[in-house]
Amino acid sequence: MPQRSDARRRMVQAARQLIRQRGYHATAISDVLERSGAPRGSVYFHFPGGKTQLAAEAAEDHAHEQVALIDEAAERADSARGLIEIYVALARDGMVTSGYSRGCGIAPLVTEAGPEQSDEIAETARRAFSAMIDRMAFHFVNFGLDRAPARQLADAVIAGMEGAMVTARALRSPAPFEAVLAVLAGHAGAVTAKSAARKGS
Amino acid sequence: MPQRSDARRRMVQAARQLIRQRGYHATAISDVLERSGAPRGSVYFHFPGGKTQLAAEAAEDHAHEQVALIDEAAERADSARGLIEIYVALARDGMVTSGYSRGCGIAPLVTEAGPEQSDEIAETARRAFSAMIDRMAFHFVNFGLDRAPARQLADAVIAGMEGAMVTARALRSPAPFEAVLAVLAGHAGAVTAKSAARKGS
Repeated sequence: MPQRSDARRRMVQAARQLIRQRGYHATAISDVLERSGAPRGSVYFHFPGGKTQLAAEAAEDHAHEQVALIDEAAERADSARGLIEIYVALARDGMVTSGYSRGCGIAPLVTEAGPEQSDEIAETARRAFSAMIDRMAFHFVNFGLDRAPARQLADAVIAGMEGAMVTARALRSPAPFEAVLAVLAGHAGAVTAKSAARKGS
Repeated sequence: MPQRSDARRRMVQAARQLIRQRGYHATAISDVLERSGAPRGSVYFHFPGGKTQLAAEAAEDHAHEQVALIDEAAERADSARGLIEIYVALARDGMVTSGYSRGCGIAPLVTEAGPEQSDEIAETARRAFSAMIDRMAFHFVNFGLDRAPARQLADAVIAGMEGAMVTARALRSPAPFEAVLAVLAGHAGAVTAKSAARKGS
């Protein structure tokens, strides 16, 4: 049933775009339907968990895309530093191209988590960020970094990206991405040299 | 009229705490009243602009406190690196102490900005982050950095903090703060040495 699964996919995409623009709470099911062109009855058919499930799948979709972008950047790079340069430039260009209107598809699930937040949402956000950090660290190890510095650098890259997405959007300037890139690239070069020296290579 | 202005101050504080926990949209005026103990009639007396004004003042209050913390950290530090170490540790400890329940008081105004977002909110967020970055850069210059690297480092510190607040909260771990600190501190040391060398000091 290709049409049915196509509507499902369009709804997840629409939810993700809306969450990136206006956050979790301000994204109404009716907006998702309007943007995706899906019929009203399809919401609880495809997403019996309602908005919570839709937002969780949108965040998973976002993380999945980010992991693919990290893999692509690693493919094109020949060092940890190169990977970071490509990945940060992508994020910066995406922000500028959107007219500073689009942030992360996962962060709103974290920053809008009140005491009544579902465990599913919190667990989804945790898994989504973990997947991105793990994949980044994996590539850093492949580029010669020891495990601990690779993990730490990956933590810093994802945090730096998330923060730049907030402050660049507020300032309507790519400067935070450039600043984060300069700091991360320098650090990547230093820890790569250190790991290489330790291995005697 | 001390009581009246006290209610006003309590409402701004309550709004800030709620926005840090659950974001902008999920913070209802009724929650602010309940938490602050202010009478319902006081909302439009003190905040004729309603929730928009209340949230804007809460963000300004948050930025004001952060600027004071940056000044305190600068007072206790003897280098750009030292300032960063103290400031990041404060943010990390605040996150851990809150049980990973409390983020930034400004970021939700950015990440929940839909197309209908008021210009006042956008301008408040821009001013709030600018104030923090400007003050941080000011202290870095006092610690001997040239203007351009001081500005870039300040941009990276605030972005790094903002991002760590998101990913640490999602992961329920202080690791992102530690990672951001390691990267920023190393960079601060390097640019301090470079600025000193340029000045021949």
